[in-house]
Formats: sequence, C-alpha cells, structure tokens
Amino acid sequence: MIYFEDNEVGKTIKIKERYIVTEEEIIEMGLKWDPRPFHIDREAAADSVLGGLVACSAHIFAIFGFSGHLMEEPFAAVSALGFDKMKLHAPVMAGDEISYEYKVLSARLSKSRPDCGIVIIMTKLFNQRSELVFSVQSASLMSCRPNND
Amino acid sequence: MIYFEDNEVGKTIKIKERYIVTEEEIIEMGLKWDPRPFHIDREAAADSVLGGLVACSAHIFAIFGFSGHLMEEPFAAVSALGFDKMKLHAPVMAGDEISYEYKVLSARLSKSRPDCGIVIIMTKLFNQRSELVFSVQSASLMSCRPNND
Repeated sequence: MIYFEDNEVGKTIKIKERYIVTEEEIIEMGLKWDPRPFHIDREAAADSVLGGLVACSAHIFAIFGFSGHLMEEPFAAVSALGFDKMKLHAPVMAGDEISYEYKVLSARLSKSRPDCGIVIIMTKLFNQRSELVFSVQSASLMSCRPNND
Repeated sequence: MIYFEDNEVGKTIKIKERYIVTEEEIIEMGLKWDPRPFHIDREAAADSVLGGLVACSAHIFAIFGFSGHLMEEPFAAVSALGFDKMKLHAPVMAGDEISYEYKVLSARLSKSRPDCGIVIIMTKLFNQRSELVFSVQSASLMSCRPNND
C-alpha cells in the first residue's frame, strides 16, 4: 500500500503494466456513451482524417481510473476530492498501449481527519510512441500509515 | 444547434430529459472499470454505510458526457479543450434520476480559429432529490453560427 507518508513531493511512479485498447472496447463504449461515427463505425472512421476509430472521452477517463487496478502497490486512497487541469491531448485508437505515470505535486496532513493526508497527483497517460494522450491533476484523501504497519 | 454566439455569460440551460441509473449498469461499469464490492456486489453493498451499490467514477463521468445526447439542441462543439474543478459531491445509486444544468461562465472568440469561439461551461448533475452529485467546468471550442444559418 502507498500511504500518505510515501508521497514525497516530486516523486514519480511509472506503472509497469500497460492498458491495451481494443477496437471492440472502443465500439462498445462508443455505442453506449457517445454513438458518433468516429467511435462506432469502422468504415466511416477509416475514411476520416485519423484513419480509424478513436476512443470516446468516457472511455479514456475510465482507462485513467483503471490505473489503480494495474498498480503493483495501490494507493491507500479514502476518497477522491476533485480533479483539475484534465486534458485530452491526442486521440486514443485501437491497438494503443497506454502507460501511466504519476507525479506527486503536493502532500499535506488533513485538518479534519488527523489519520489522513491530502495528496495532489498529476497523472499522465502515454501511448506506445510515448505521446502524451491524457493528463489530469487529482486531489485525494489518503490514509496515513497505520502504527502497526 | 447551439453556436458560439448563443452562449451569453450567465445563461443557464436545464436539460428536460433525465438519465435513469440502473443497478445493471452500475454493476456492468463496476465489473469492467472498478471491480470493488460497493460497485459490483449487491449484498456487500446493502450492508455498507450507503445501503446499496454506488456508481463508479468512470460511470458518473460517462453519464456527464452523455448529456450531449440528451439535449434537444446540441452544442456545435468542435473539440473539448479541457476540464477543471471536477468534483463528485454525493454518491450516485441505482434508481437515481440524474438531471443536468449548464451555466455559461465565459465566452470569447478564438484567436487561432476565427470561425470558432472558446466557451467555458459549468455543468452540474443533480439527483431526483435535487442534491448536487457531480460538477465540472469544461472549456470547448465551439463553431460560430454559419452565415447562411
């Protein structure tokens, strides 16, 4: 577990595991959440500027959130306080291999919850060509390390 | 179509249509994106503080994004520039009826794209008890009204 105390400002964590984006998943998420041709129609997408299907923003945000399940050691997060500076930098397409990088921007003890701290982390998602595709700054309430751990 | 010029600062739009959150969808999104007991296990969730399954954050963000498909008149959005001040205020649970409210915070012509403007909108999602469940501030590049429209 990564506790509050483990978040020194400036510390960077790269997740070893990558998230593989499949065409099936792009279409499935597109059909459900944003049924526009470039998310769901192979042929229309092939004829478009990008030359293929692109993941909808709900899909990309979900892939970001999934990072917690790919970490070798998860964060001892109690709750998500908010998200800022979220940006979709480049399209996410079928076959993309998404890698994750965290950087601790700030960390302070909580005033209302003495057993917790507030950690602000910048998460960046890259594709297999090391192009930044998504970034977001998130504030989380994180447990302090228990005395017996 | 809602073009750039239609976004006077302070203008508020409420979408008539509501989004009904089902237990099946909470479990489906939870299994795929955040398989923790309070998203996927009916019995464990019933015994929890909240007394039932809660939608995962990927699900709530997707419901937010879906608003574009519920509007009577869609925004003439060209691209999403970024999201700020995103917050999950209260849990979203099975049976919740989510309503949407937009408020225009700022609007200015784009310098690089003379046929477009940059509009910042605050979107709020409420449940059937008028409790705020989610809010986010989004910046979009929006088309100006074509001369022949």
